[in-house]
Formats: sequence, C-alpha cells, structure tokens
Amino acid sequence: MFGFSVIQKDPDTQARLGSMSTTHGAVRTPAFMPVATQGTVKATTPRELHEIGAEIILANAYHLYLRPGVELVEQAGGLHRFMGWDGPILTDSGGYQVFSLKDLCRVSEEGVRFRSHLDGSTHFLTPEAVVRTQERLGVDIAMVLDECVPGPASYHEAARANALTTRWAERALAAKTCGEQALFGIVQGGTFPDLREQSARALVRLDFPGYAVGGLSVGEDPGLTQQLAAYTVQFLPEPRPRYLMGVGMPEQLVRYVALGFDLFDCVLPTRNARNGTLFTRTGKLNIRRAANANDLRPVEEDCGCYTCRHFSRAYLRHLAVAGEILSARLNTLHNLYFYQHLMRSMREALATGRFAAFARPFLELPAVEREEERVWQI
Amino acid sequence: MFGFSVIQKDPDTQARLGSMSTTHGAVRTPAFMPVATQGTVKATTPRELHEIGAEIILANAYHLYLRPGVELVEQAGGLHRFMGWDGPILTDSGGYQVFSLKDLCRVSEEGVRFRSHLDGSTHFLTPEAVVRTQERLGVDIAMVLDECVPGPASYHEAARANALTTRWAERALAAKTCGEQALFGIVQGGTFPDLREQSARALVRLDFPGYAVGGLSVGEDPGLTQQLAAYTVQFLPEPRPRYLMGVGMPEQLVRYVALGFDLFDCVLPTRNARNGTLFTRTGKLNIRRAANANDLRPVEEDCGCYTCRHFSRAYLRHLAVAGEILSARLNTLHNLYFYQHLMRSMREALATGRFAAFARPFLELPAVEREEERVWQI
Repeated sequence: MFGFSVIQKDPDTQARLGSMSTTHGAVRTPAFMPVATQGTVKATTPRELHEIGAEIILANAYHLYLRPGVELVEQAGGLHRFMGWDGPILTDSGGYQVFSLKDLCRVSEEGVRFRSHLDGSTHFLTPEAVVRTQERLGVDIAMVLDECVPGPASYHEAARANALTTRWAERALAAKTCGEQALFGIVQGGTFPDLREQSARALVRLDFPGYAVGGLSVGEDPGLTQQLAAYTVQFLPEPRPRYLMGVGMPEQLVRYVALGFDLFDCVLPTRNARNGTLFTRTGKLNIRRAANANDLRPVEEDCGCYTCRHFSRAYLRHLAVAGEILSARLNTLHNLYFYQHLMRSMREALATGRFAAFARPFLELPAVEREEERVWQI
Repeated sequence: MFGFSVIQKDPDTQARLGSMSTTHGAVRTPAFMPVATQGTVKATTPRELHEIGAEIILANAYHLYLRPGVELVEQAGGLHRFMGWDGPILTDSGGYQVFSLKDLCRVSEEGVRFRSHLDGSTHFLTPEAVVRTQERLGVDIAMVLDECVPGPASYHEAARANALTTRWAERALAAKTCGEQALFGIVQGGTFPDLREQSARALVRLDFPGYAVGGLSVGEDPGLTQQLAAYTVQFLPEPRPRYLMGVGMPEQLVRYVALGFDLFDCVLPTRNARNGTLFTRTGKLNIRRAANANDLRPVEEDCGCYTCRHFSRAYLRHLAVAGEILSARLNTLHNLYFYQHLMRSMREALATGRFAAFARPFLELPAVEREEERVWQI
C-alpha cells in the first residue's frame, strides 16, 4: 500500500525529508527517478541501478502502450517482472508525449485521439483507459492523463486545458480499481499563476495521494519556471508527496527541494552521458574534448562510482571517440551516480539540520551565459 | 613469466587440457578469448568478463597504435591499467588488419607501409616496431607481424609471403627486449599444405613459446579450413600452446580442440549479439523475430548468465526492436557466457576423460544449408 510521511522539516527552507512507501519498497525523499521510457534506463541494468542507489525509476505508459503493448507486459507479470526491476516504478501517463505530437493529436472532452509516432496507427486515450493501462502495467505510482498545452499558450487556451485536465483527473480517480497503486494528480495552468492556483486547489479537493506539477521546464525562462513552481507548491498539502516533472539540472534539484518538492525525474543525466557530457562537482565535463586525451585522472577523484573507480578520462575519451557502447554505459553510470549522490547529500543535510548551508551555494548560483560554465559545489 | 603445460591428453583425439601461466594470471585451456579490438570487449565491462568466466581477452595492437596511440596507453601504465582488465591479454599484431586494407598498403622486405583507415595518415610497420608496440602496451602475449595474403592467392604469391613472414618472425624474436611477454609465431601458407608445413617447421626452428595458425577461416570453404588446420597442427610442438586465429562457430571450437588447438578468438559472439543473434544449445536464435514477441521464457532455461536469469525473450526482443543499448549488452553477455560455458564444458570433459563422447555430436554435425538451422547438443 502507498504511503508518505514527512520525517523532518527544514527550519530554514520549505525542504522536507520524507519516506514514501510502496508495494515494491520504500523511497527516501527527496528522490531522483532515473528515466526508463521504454522499460529500460538507457544503457543500464537493474543491478546497476540498485548499486548506484536508485530507489525508484520512471517509465512511460504511452511508450509501453505502443510498444511492446500492455497485454504482453501484463502477461509477463507486470512491468517489474518484465524489465527485471523489483523496486518502485512510477509511470508517466503519456499526456506530455501525446500532446507533443501536435499535428498527430486531437483532443475532445472524452479524450485524445492521436497517431502513433512508431507506425502511424490511430489510438484514442481517455482518462479511464490511461488508469487502466497503468494498472495493467502494475506500477506503484500512476499519473493521470493531462492536457499539456505548449509553452506559449494564451490565457484562454491554458484555462480551457486546465479545466479539462481537472475534469479528466476526477474521471481518472473514479476509474481506479486497484488499491495497491497510487494515482497522482498533475497541476497544469501554463504560465499563469492564477490558473496554477485554480488547478492545484481543484485537484486537492479531489484528494490525491500525491501531486505533480507539470508543464514546467518545457522551454520557458528558468526564472519563470521557478516563480511558478514556488507559487504553485504552496497550494499542495504538506502531508502528500510533491513531484516536479521533468526537472532538471543539479542546481535546480537543490532549488526545488528547498521549495518543498520531493520527487524529480529528468533525462539529462542519461542523455548527456550518451553525448559524452559528464556531471562533476565542479561543473560539466565534455569527455570528447582533446583536453581529456591524455588526462589519466578519473572524472572525479573522490567519486565512488564504478566508472571513476576503474577508468581514466583518457580511456573514457577514447571510448567516446571510438564510438564504443561502453562509452554510453560508463558515462551513464557516472551521471546517474552523481544525481543519486546529490539526492543522498541533500537527505543527509536535511537529517542533520544542515540543509540551508548545503543549499546556499546552489541557491546563490549566478546566472551563467553558457551552461558549460556552471560550477557546482557539492 | 610465461609458461604452458599440458595437464591431460585425451586418449581418443588430439585434444589436451592445459594451463598457461602469464604475468597477469593463469589461463585454463582450451580457452576462448573475447575480442577487445579497441581496448574494450564491445558493450561489456571487465567486471562482467570476470563474472562470465573469461580468463584472457584479445586486443588489437594495430587499432590501439592508431587510436588512442601507444604512448598514452604506456603512460597509463599499460593496456591492463588503461582498460581496467587485470587478467591476461593477448594482442594481435595487426598484420591481418593492415593487409586487409588492400589499396592502402604496400609491402617490402623491410616492412609494410599503409594508410590509416581512420584519418588517411601514413604509417610504416616493421616486425621490430610491432614487437616494440606490444611491449609498450604491456600485454602478456604478443603476436609477430605477418603478411596475410588474400584467400585465393596463387602458390607463387603464397610462397613469397610465407618466406617473408618467416624472415619477419626471426627479426621479431631478435627485437624482443621484455622477458615477461611471450611472443607467438604465426603459421601462414595460404591454402597450400606444403607451404603450411614449411612455415610451421621454420617457425618451430625459431623456438617460439607459442604458435598461432593464421590466414584460415577467411572466406575459404570450411572443409578446407579444417583440412589445413589438421595438417598444420601436427608440425607444432606438443608442449607449446596452439592458437587458431579468428575461429569460430561453437561446433568449430569443439572440432579444433579435438585437433589439438588450445586458444581461440572470434568476433562472432559479440558481433552476433549486437545484431540480435543469440547462441543456444539448440542452435541460433534471432531475437528480433516476431515468434519471440510473446515468449516469456528465457533464451535458455538452464543458462546461468545474467540475461537468462533475469529477462525473457519477449523483453530482449522489445529491447532489440526499440533500439535500446541494453539489447546489445544483454545479448553480448549471453553469447560470451555461452562460449565460456562451452569451453568450460570441454575442459571438464577432458579432465574426466569424457571428451570424445562430449565432442561426438559436434564432429558428426551434418553440413547445413543455412547456418541458422544449425543445432548444437551441448
């Protein structure tokens, strides 16, 4: 059964140390969920995910619905069995994916019709069907179907989508049949604070076991993202987990933990890894650069990940330049470890009342012209 | 220091159980060496190689010479340190690679000039330089530079190349400066038994600590390969390890062990894995086929590899169809495990005097029209 408890509140910020219980085990929060869109965290095995300390991962119901199909996953005994991961899984509903198809989707009160990006076949998603899909996948946390409007939507458009998302959320809750699975609502409202408030209040009235804030960090100015997230979070009940979808960079994780968010997911650590970009405590490192060609130091001297304990920057650069699969693997392990280590550090700081001091360097980070110049002090 | 001893000879065939000692540990023979051309066995980590029971791997001096360069590997403390593999390493000299460049290489008494397949730069390899390169790489077993003539070479051409390879072998031996590293000679001679005999006898007179048979399994009829290998092996001294280069399919490994070969390498298990072809005891399995889409069995019911212990054929097919990196990883682990298991089974059969019975089904395998129809009885 699903549960959440706040273990400790930070005296200086809105941050909280928490524990989320699910059918497949406990998750210490704040937590970062590695992204397993197609039923695999790209380039990693479940064993490695356990080893780097991941306690929950995120998969995508939309992708799995299209391929390999829900029926197969259900026959396999659920997504956990299918992908060999025995820890908690949260699935995104796929709203974000469907609505990013633009020309291929049409929304109505009943649901959304779209054409598969894989084979052009037509599908119709309803809030009820999306709940059912996620129940059949057997995941621990499901997300409601929401309508995501594109970043620069008008107030009118955002308000309409918002109202629809709220009605869909109510239908989703009513459609639930499985007590083991928690269904989270998703606050929308575009870039308009009053719509964000409206959305949050309406969802809270429906009493979800957890709340996500969606439709942020989708291209708008990061300052605006932060304002909207900070504004929205105050309407979400303290005793429930708060999930900021699709965020983000390391310093953003710290900022949003300080604002009271508990759960995060982002493709950055895994996608960057495959492009040769590694996260370190002193900033990002492009391993492909010539400067690394003869550098026999590990990516980070005191990093405990498998990559840093066994391989040099020079070797990692060689693998990247030579196009070896091991490059994606070792880079991914390091980046995911870096993220898990960051979350662990935040939890330790929260547990010992040092979070404000820990967070300060991140909160005070100056704006940088180029992301590559960013330096973190973890 | 390098050493080899035959522990047990099979009473019914030429097969032998042996033990090869190197600076980086012992290797039980017959042994299969996973191929790490560019300093990584594609898609695997050293930890995984240890776990599947690999005791020695093969890298390629030619590839490493071109990229990342010998100087870097030497600075890193040698290839073992550079790639994080602490077991024995054998490097191929690169003769095969250079001579497969055809238009880009020109051979003389002194050595071979060729243009890099990476950037077109010109290089000149001599037998001495190739020894020096491998000493700087710090590997346990080095191979001499040999001239590999294309499969359908004339007698005249094969004889000329053969004589040159022998003179190069003598120069290579004379160039050795490192007592820790064993240098193996390579028997050439194209498809001509008398040239094979000549080559073998000449090399044996030079007294190498080990002998390879090269230039086979390069496109000629498999029956001819076997005849030539069987003919050649009788001229190689019993107390020295015999390495059949670039071979091969599972049943070929059994056949050539029965003929008295001890060492093998081949890209088949790793390359096939990346193409979705898995080895099983009952034949090859193309995991991408629709027949596997709903098959919830592992690739092999009683296989002890990580892949078979945790994942179904349906999941592996999903990964392959979805183009996930994990597909290459899990398939590679299974195929390499299959090969190591096959070698282990042969060694156990040799140790208990059951090799002939073990080998019989392989030796009696009928010719098949299509490789996919091949069935092994391991």
